[in-house]
Parts: sequence; C-alpha cells; structure tokens
Amino acid sequence: MTFSLIHKKRTAVLLGAAALISAVPAQAEVSTESAYVFNTFSFLIHGVLVMFMAAGFAMLESGLVRAKNTATICLKNIALYSLAGITFYLVGYNLMYVDVPQGGVMGTLSFLYNPSGDELALINADKATPEMVGKVIEGGYSVPSDWFFQMVFVATAASIVSGTVAERIKVWPFMVFVVVLAAVIYPIQASWVWGGGWLDAMGFTDFAGSTLVHSTGGWAALTGAIILGARHGKYGPDGSVRALPGANIPLATLGTFILWFGWFGFNGGSQLALGGALDATAMSIVYVNTNLAAAAGVVVSMVLAQLMYGKVDVSLALNGAIGGLVAITAGPDLQNHFIALIVGGVGGALVVVAVPMIDKMKIDDVVGAISAHLVAGIWGTLCVGIFGAGSVVTQLIGIVAIGAFVSVVSAIVWFILKMAVGIRIEEEDEVLGLDKAECGMEAYPEFGAGSRTL
Amino acid sequence: MTFSLIHKKRTAVLLGAAALISAVPAQAEVSTESAYVFNTFSFLIHGVLVMFMAAGFAMLESGLVRAKNTATICLKNIALYSLAGITFYLVGYNLMYVDVPQGGVMGTLSFLYNPSGDELALINADKATPEMVGKVIEGGYSVPSDWFFQMVFVATAASIVSGTVAERIKVWPFMVFVVVLAAVIYPIQASWVWGGGWLDAMGFTDFAGSTLVHSTGGWAALTGAIILGARHGKYGPDGSVRALPGANIPLATLGTFILWFGWFGFNGGSQLALGGALDATAMSIVYVNTNLAAAAGVVVSMVLAQLMYGKVDVSLALNGAIGGLVAITAGPDLQNHFIALIVGGVGGALVVVAVPMIDKMKIDDVVGAISAHLVAGIWGTLCVGIFGAGSVVTQLIGIVAIGAFVSVVSAIVWFILKMAVGIRIEEEDEVLGLDKAECGMEAYPEFGAGSRTL
Amino acid sequence: MTFSLIHKKRTAVLLGAAALISAVPAQAEVSTESAYVFNTFSFLIHGVLVMFMAAGFAMLESGLVRAKNTATICLKNIALYSLAGITFYLVGYNLMYVDVPQGGVMGTLSFLYNPSGDELALINADKATPEMVGKVIEGGYSVPSDWFFQMVFVATAASIVSGTVAERIKVWPFMVFVVVLAAVIYPIQASWVWGGGWLDAMGFTDFAGSTLVHSTGGWAALTGAIILGARHGKYGPDGSVRALPGANIPLATLGTFILWFGWFGFNGGSQLALGGALDATAMSIVYVNTNLAAAAGVVVSMVLAQLMYGKVDVSLALNGAIGGLVAITAGPDLQNHFIALIVGGVGGALVVVAVPMIDKMKIDDVVGAISAHLVAGIWGTLCVGIFGAGSVVTQLIGIVAIGAFVSVVSAIVWFILKMAVGIRIEEEDEVLGLDKAECGMEAYPEFGAGSRTL
Repeated sequence: MTFSLIHKKRTAVLLGAAALISAVPAQAEVSTESAYVFNTFSFLIHGVLVMFMAAGFAMLESGLVRAKNTATICLKNIALYSLAGITFYLVGYNLMYVDVPQGGVMGTLSFLYNPSGDELALINADKATPEMVGKVIEGGYSVPSDWFFQMVFVATAASIVSGTVAERIKVWPFMVFVVVLAAVIYPIQASWVWGGGWLDAMGFTDFAGSTLVHSTGGWAALTGAIILGARHGKYGPDGSVRALPGANIPLATLGTFILWFGWFGFNGGSQLALGGALDATAMSIVYVNTNLAAAAGVVVSMVLAQLMYGKVDVSLALNGAIGGLVAITAGPDLQNHFIALIVGGVGGALVVVAVPMIDKMKIDDVVGAISAHLVAGIWGTLCVGIFGAGSVVTQLIGIVAIGAFVSVVSAIVWFILKMAVGIRIEEEDEVLGLDKAECGMEAYPEFGAGSRTL
Repeated sequence: MTFSLIHKKRTAVLLGAAALISAVPAQAEVSTESAYVFNTFSFLIHGVLVMFMAAGFAMLESGLVRAKNTATICLKNIALYSLAGITFYLVGYNLMYVDVPQGGVMGTLSFLYNPSGDELALINADKATPEMVGKVIEGGYSVPSDWFFQMVFVATAASIVSGTVAERIKVWPFMVFVVVLAAVIYPIQASWVWGGGWLDAMGFTDFAGSTLVHSTGGWAALTGAIILGARHGKYGPDGSVRALPGANIPLATLGTFILWFGWFGFNGGSQLALGGALDATAMSIVYVNTNLAAAAGVVVSMVLAQLMYGKVDVSLALNGAIGGLVAITAGPDLQNHFIALIVGGVGGALVVVAVPMIDKMKIDDVVGAISAHLVAGIWGTLCVGIFGAGSVVTQLIGIVAIGAFVSVVSAIVWFILKMAVGIRIEEEDEVLGLDKAECGMEAYPEFGAGSRTL
Repeated sequence: MTFSLIHKKRTAVLLGAAALISAVPAQAEVSTESAYVFNTFSFLIHGVLVMFMAAGFAMLESGLVRAKNTATICLKNIALYSLAGITFYLVGYNLMYVDVPQGGVMGTLSFLYNPSGDELALINADKATPEMVGKVIEGGYSVPSDWFFQMVFVATAASIVSGTVAERIKVWPFMVFVVVLAAVIYPIQASWVWGGGWLDAMGFTDFAGSTLVHSTGGWAALTGAIILGARHGKYGPDGSVRALPGANIPLATLGTFILWFGWFGFNGGSQLALGGALDATAMSIVYVNTNLAAAAGVVVSMVLAQLMYGKVDVSLALNGAIGGLVAITAGPDLQNHFIALIVGGVGGALVVVAVPMIDKMKIDDVVGAISAHLVAGIWGTLCVGIFGAGSVVTQLIGIVAIGAFVSVVSAIVWFILKMAVGIRIEEEDEVLGLDKAECGMEAYPEFGAGSRTL
C-alpha cells in the first residue's frame, strides 16, 4: 500500500526539514518525532474545525428553509454527515488515496481503512523500541489523523447538496445519493488531483478544494435541482419568481459564522504539515488570506445589494462570506494578502449576480448553494492561474473535467433514484411540509408557524 | 502531595519516551520540555472543546423543552457549569486525585487547588534556571492544565441531570444538588478509577467516562426523575403517554452537533498525553473511533425509527448520536475501527429501545438523557470487556458499584432537599411555566408561544 | 521595520529559553524552531477561538433585541467583523505596532501588511537553507499569525458597540464608525500599551485587554448611546423605564457560551508564546483563572438578582458571566486562583448594579454592554494594581487616559456622522423595525412576531 500525492507533497516538506537536520545545530530544528506530533495534531485539530462545519450547514439551511421543513433539514444534515463518514471509511478513502496509478483515474476498490501495521505494532508493544518509533514517524503523520481530516471534506461536499434540494426531496433517496457521492463520485474525482492522478500530473492545483469539494458539491446540487424541479409555487406560469423567505435568520447567520470558523481548519489544515518553520509560516499566511477573502466577500455583496436593490440584504451578505471563502480555497497561499481581497471580493460579487440568474433559469436553489459553492468555486480555481503559479488553461481543464464527471454521474444517480423509488414528495405533502409528512415532529410546534406558510 | 493513576498512566508513557532518549539520535525524539508543552497544550485545547459541551447541553435542552420553560433551562445550564467548576476547585479535585490510597475509596478532603510550588517558582524566578525548568517538566504536564481538563468533565456529568429533571424542578434546590454532585459524588466515584482507587486496582477500565461521567450523570438523573415525579399531564390515569414535544428542533440539533464536536476533546484529550509518536497515534485512533461510533448511532437509530414508527424521527437521531458517543467513550482506543461501528450502532439502538421503555415505567425524562447517557454508558463500559482488553465481570462490578453508590447518595440528597425545601414547583406554576414563575423573563416573549402550551 | 513591546515581551521569554539551551542537555529543551511552531500555532488556534466570539456577539445581540430588529443586528455583526479585519489590514496594524517610538503615541501610518521578507524568502526558496530558517525563527513566531491574532481583538472591540446602539441606528453610518474605530481609535490607544508607547513606559499593564479592548468598546458604545438617544418608548416622560425584552433567550445564552469558549483564546493566547515550560504553565494558569472568574460572575449575579428582585434573571446571569470574563482579562495570570473568584465575582456584581444605574441616567444600552464591558473592564484593570504587580495609580491613569481619548474621538466621529448623514432612523421606521426599513428581510417572517412588538 502506498500513498499518493497529497502525501508526497508533505513528504517533500519533511525531506526539506530532514535536509536541515545535518546542517544546523541540534538545538535549532524540529526533531522528526516532534514534527510527527505537530503534523498529526494539526490534522486532528483542523479536522475538528471542519467537522463543525456540518453544524454550520445545518444551521444555515435550518435558517433559510421555511418552518415547516426545518426538522427534516436538521435530520438530513446529521444523517448525511454520519453516512458520509461511514461510507468514506468503508470504501471512499481507499478509492481516493491508496495506490492511485501515476496519472491514473482512481485508487483501490478495497474495503475498510485501519491504522497502519507499524502504528499498531508501536501501540501494542510491551516496550516501544526506537526502531518501532522510527518506522511510524517516517510517514510524517499518523494515518488515522489523515483519514479523519480527509473524511470531514467528503462530508462538506455532501452538505452542499442538501441545501439546494431542500423542501421537496424525499429523505431516504437523498440519503442514497449521499452514499454514492461519498463512496464513489467524490473519491474518484479527488483521486485525480489529491490522489496523484491525471489532473495532478497535468499541473492542476486546488489547495483545499474550491473545485474538488465545493464545485463537486455544487454540480451534484445543480443536477439534483434540475431533475427534481422547483418547489411548488416558486415560479409563476408568467415567469415570475416568488420569494419564499427563510424562517430563522439568526440561525442562518450563526451557520455562516460556524462555516467561517471551520474554514480555518479547511484551508489551514490543508497545508498538510506543521512540523517546521516553513509550514507554520505558510499556514499562517493561509489563515490571513482566508479571513480577508471572506471579509471582502461580505463587504462587496453588501455594497452590491445596496446598489442593486436599495437595501442591504442579510442573506446575500451571508452568502457573500461563503462565496469569498469558497473562492480563496483553491489558492489561499497567496503571498500578497491584497490579492486575497480581490479573489474573495469577486467571489462575493459573483454570488450576488448568480443568485437571480439561476432563478431566471428556474433552477430552484433553496439556500443559494450553487452560486456560493459552484460559481465562486470556479472563479477561485481560475484565480490560481490568474494570480498564482498555475496555468489558467490547466485550471480550466480541471474545472471542466471534474464538472463533467460529477454532473454526468450525479445525473445518472438522480435519474435511477427517480425511476426506482421517486425522489420528490407528493404535492400535498410539500404543501403540508416535510416535517409533518416525512419526519416524526415539527420544528417549532408552539410557534404557530406551520399554518401560516405556503 | 502525590498524584494518582491517571497521572501514573501518563508517566508510564513519558518513561517510555525517556527510554528512547538515550537510544536514538538527538534529532529524532521529542525533548522532555517539548513533550511537556505538547501534553499541556493538549489538555488546554481539548479541555476547551469539552467546555463547549456545556453550550451543547444548553442548546439540546433548550430545544427539547417547551417554550414556557426555556429561559429557565438556559439559566440552569450556565449556572451549573459555573457551580461545578467552582466546587471542583474548592474541594472536588483534591477529593478525586490527591493522595488517593492505593486501592482506596477517596482522596484528600482539603480545600482549594493551585499551581504546584515548582511551577510558581519557575514563573516567579527573575532568571529561570535549568533546574527549575527540569523540576516542572518532570511532571509531564502543567498542573493547572490538568485541573482544567478534569473540571470540564464534572460539568458534563452535572449537565446530564438538568435535562432529565427539566420543566418541574425548582431552580435553587437543583443548584444545591449540582454542588453536592460536583463536590462529593462525582469525585469520590471517579477516585476509584482515575484516582487509582479500588476499582482501578481490580482492573476496571473506563477510558474517558462512559461510566464515570455519563452513567454517573444518568444515575443521578434517574433518581431525581423518580423522586421528583412526572410532569403534569405527561402520563394519563389510563397509562397513556402524552408527547410533550420540544419547542425548537434546530437548537436541539445544534446542541447535538456541539456535543459531537466537543466529544473529540472529551475522548481525544483523555489520551492524557501528546508528547510522542505513540500518544499522537493513539489519539488519532481515538478521534476516528469516536466519529464512527457517533455516525453509526445516528444511522441505526434512524433506520430503527423508520421500521418501528414508519417515519424518521429527528430527536431519536440526535439521541442516537449521543448514544453512540457515550458508548464508545469507555474504550475509544479500539484498534479495529469496524468495532467502533458496532459499539456505536448498538448504543444508538439502545436509545431507541430504552426511550419508550422508560416512559412505560412512568419515569419522565424530558430529553432522553437516561437512555442516551446511562443505558448507552453501561453498554459502552461492557464493550471494553467484550471487544477490548478488559474483563466483562470486572466491568460489570464497576458498573454496579458506581451505579449503587451514585444512586443511593443521589437519592439521599434529593430526599433531603425534598424534605427541607421542596424540589418541585407548584402545579399552577408548572402550568404557567417556570420562566414566568421562577425566572425573570420569557424565552420567546414575542412569539405567542406561552399561551399555546399545555 | 521593528516590532514593539508586545513582541519585546515575547522575545524576553524566548531569550530566557535561549539561555537554557547552552545549559541543559540537548534532549531536554524545546528547540528554537519547535518554539517557533508552538508560538505560531498558539496564535492561530487561539485566534480562531477569538474569531468565533464574533458569532457569540451576533447571537447574544440577536437574542436580546426585539424580533423586528434581529436580521439587521445579524447583518451588522458579520459586516463589522469583516470591516474591522480589512481596515486593520489596510492601516490599523501598522499604526498599532510598527515603529512605535519608545514612550510614543502611535506607530506608522503606512498601508497594507504582509508577511516579512524573510518569511517570503523561505517560502519561495527552491531549497530552504538553515540560514533562511534561522532568520525566520529568530522572530519567535510567524508575522501573519500575529496579525491574525491581533486582528480578532479589534473585531471584538467593534462588536461591543453594536449591541449598545442597536434597534435605532442606521446601518451604513454605523459601518463608517466601525471603520474609524478599527483604523484609528483602537490602534492608537493600543499602541500606548501593547505597542510599547507611553502608558507601557509608565508601567501600565493590561494582559489581554480589559481596558484596551473592552473598555475601549464600552466608551465608544457609551458615547454612541448618548448621542444617538434612547429607543422610542424606552423611557417615559415621568422617568419610568420600560422593559423591552429580547426576543430569543436561548440565542442569547448560546452567544454567552460562545464568548466564554472564545475567551480562552482571548486570554490564553495573550500569553503570546507557548515555546517552553514557562509559557505553557503560565498559559494554563490563565485558562483556570479565566474560567473561575466567569463562573464567579454568574453565581454572584444570580444570587444578587434573587436578593434584589426575588427572581433569578437569565440576562443578568449571562451578563454576569461576561462581567467576570472582562474583569479577569487585565490580569488572568494571578497565581492564587482564589483571587480570580473575587475579581470575577465583583465583576458580575458590578453588572447587576450598573445596569439599572445606567438606565436611570436614561442611557439606553440594549444589551447591557456598557455595564459588562466598560464598568467591569475598569474594575479588572484596577485589580492588576490591587491584587497583582501593578500600581493602582498607574492603572487609573491608563483607564482615564484611554477613556478620555476614546470618548472624545468617538464623540467627534458620532457627531460628524450625525451632522453629515444622520445616524438615527426615522421614528416610523423604528416602530416598524429596522429589518423592514433598512434590511431586505425579516428575521422570523413566519412567527407573526413583527406585529406584536412595540
């Protein structure tokens, strides 16, 4: 079993550190074992931050759906995080990372993932020998810590889908889609880049997943929204668009803040190492750019909303933050922070522009996830070519290839589900609300909200 | 003053590291002082994650009580976290950890806890000498960081009680119970295991507290619920059970996600050390198992609810996550991650089965905490014998001994409070709601919810 | 470009560590590069915790305003966090830290802040040489990590203002004030102490910002509240005070817990270093004191409310926690934890006493921020003289000087804004609610809350 590029990159850094060892005095550098602890702890702590993004999506979506569908969206979010993790354990991780052929299209179809033999030998030894420790620390980080960090990314991709298709999709077919996404769709396309497959060989770069995570989620959401159709009453026969406002704006705000908070783990942890001055410095730069891009996304979307609609708009400001964050994710290692403001600001602007355009196409995206994750994700991925070390053409090839793959496979899965079991609830259930129809409880049973909704 | 087992275990690991020092080249291993920093920082960061679980319980319970009792449950949660911390500082920590006799039943009844003399000497020195540093790092970790990490566990145990007895208990008597729990009940039983007392001497194992924290909270909650009686209108004279649905499901969902997030601190930090490859690897395994068990709890409880009731049920899914988390807590160091799925999945299933059974016994548990923390905690503790290195018989002895101790002492305390000041609010106040009766405000004054409740 | 005191202090600690290097065996101490990684990671992780306090303020304020103004307060909170960060990047950081003359009154008016040249050289090197690493680690920490940590403090100061002036201020003029606060007011006064300016030269001490962050926010809020005037209907012509209860107490509770959670980053990270036993120990002490002070603030404010009003009061308990936290922030390095209980307990008591007093002066502070941040901040700053190593007189000089500077400049800015564009919305818009008047959506459109408010 060998590990692919994401690991190779890290190894390169570690080799850099190793090269120093012989050159500088013993007191100066980070020991190999300390580097192992730093790297591992970085995966764990940053992974926990990303894990919390599941709560962020749950709150964002809870706030932006109508009251009668809120309990169901809560259920979907905790269920999808659970299913994504189990599935990635059962099959996804191996498909993404293990023995991906150089320039290939996927890893190994094998089941279950466990700590490495060297790690288990060390843990089970009555007395750890230096050789045992040496074998383990050679890897640079603990294998389960890497699994944990990668797993939370899959869950993020799945979370993006749930918001777009909310308020009319059946619970169980949605869960099946999540399983396919986490088991097959996400790992295969991710293996092309982070697994060391063909796109990586071409030079395509995506630091933390503008395309691999966010656009992937966005494409899956887009195909779902098209195949599922719009919510009852959303678009009039005359082409009019009816606003169906979210029931709980403070929760949507909380969700956005949680996403922002978790994004430091998403981008910061994607430095993949913390075992020396170089990595710690690079990680710090990533944190700063991540924050500035999100901030620019908020400010630009606020100003644009004021200019376009004469009012500030909370939900656009929230999606502006997400747009800025998604945009910076492909290349948060920019050395001039000012460019982060541009990348994020344009990301926020794209959200404001894309939301009404997507509505005009009668694609019903309940929370604006297609605009914030797919559109801003494409922009961010291109930025690596525009402002960074990448090539715009190569970036474009990656965007198109992954977009085509995810869209086609997602569409097939959605269609099969539609034919086999149906993916859309009955119209009367939609009017009644998913909470009463599919879920054993109302979200706000005492607030008399259910009777007042469409 | 000497420290007991929890510290001894850590020392063992540190000695293992120390043994390496002479054997491997100077550049390879973690220095003693670096290990001290790693260990200390692990306590602090993981402790902060556990601290946030107080917010998780507050939101879970806020979401699952009725609107008219919500402000009071908020107050209780911030107050119990505060009281538990102060009490553990005043007396609990010493009773739990300091000078517990080998195989004994409690530590020292002495007051106040402060940094060690060596630590204060180092901090106050005009010029720190290597000897001063050496004395401090000999302990392996900073004493206040350990206090902080242990303190947040006490608060968790107290949080469990508040959910079960909600909606009819008086505020101040509840607070008195929390003080006794944190000052006496929790520390004494915990000293039996983590303090190096008699259960530890027998070989009873509880990694992060399925029994010591969660079942302890559960037993205290169970005795409270029995002595307090059910809420007005919960059980009909004909034996019927009336659902009294929670007022705010998104908040309950948020609370569960926060608990899950914090649980990485709970279990991960309970590795108690991060100062080398062995501990970092073991901690990574703990993270993965914790996540998989929770995920399995969610999926199993969703499927079971669908099979049993024909609908998915959000609150069961949330409690399924907690059941999975509680179950894995006694032994999250499993080396085969697949077993974590079984441990957590059964934990989730037990919650689905236990909730209606406890209702059938007319024990009114507002949030399902007895099922999620006590029942799943017993299962998880047994798992250490079934799947791990422990003995089922020894685990059973520990479960029974701690259960008996906590139940008897809790019952005595509840009874004394009942006799002395009364623990239950008047029926008219219960109908009116605790917020208006005991607390200076309503939780949702503008939403017209109060008038619509039972 | 040289860095000022905050950095000098850290250097002092690093020099202490460096002195050890030659004295103890190679295996014992933390290597210079490991210390760099520890220090940098401490800034990042603690900075993320502080960043999340923005969510805490958003939730606290969302819970304490009326439903009709909730969406607007959400918008303001995400916007102010964004603007504060951008502004601090554009100009604030340099003004606060770069080339502050010894005993001077401000740093450099220069634009944009980027990683240091040594850091960029290291990152861009084809092959990192020991010399390159050496130059970078000499600084002790990564420059962008420091920027990130300092930036989140500015945002906190700005957050304090928004709560006080809520429910009647116009969105855009408020944003302009935030920009001035973050660009000029905050950095200049902070340079006097943390930048190594004149107050630092006098011996004034403020560990993490009771005065520099919390009182500064409080003074700006106070002048804003006075110039803006009270909300419509708050004070009767007969001097009566009308309660305008917050719409969502669980959210306010969540906000307080988030603030408490983030405060470990606020105070713990302000140790500014983690690269050795001394700093790790000192940081642990800070964590414990922070928690005990907050806990004491809760308990004291609960007991006082019971004694004064015959009921426990949730919002006072929440503000009691904040009062305790603010009070301990100037000196959380107390070596006797018991004193932390006193500092925090008095902080909580002051909030309970100050809230009605400020109301009596007809200063309308929607969330009690003046009491919790300004009053408790003054007390906490004095405590450094009373219980710590500082002088009460010097502390008082700092309190007065910063109070005068912030109040005067804030008043000027508020007045200019009032004259130029107006800062207060029309009375009919105030009655209607800011959400409908200024913001493109209602916070709870389905809950029928809007029609029931004042």
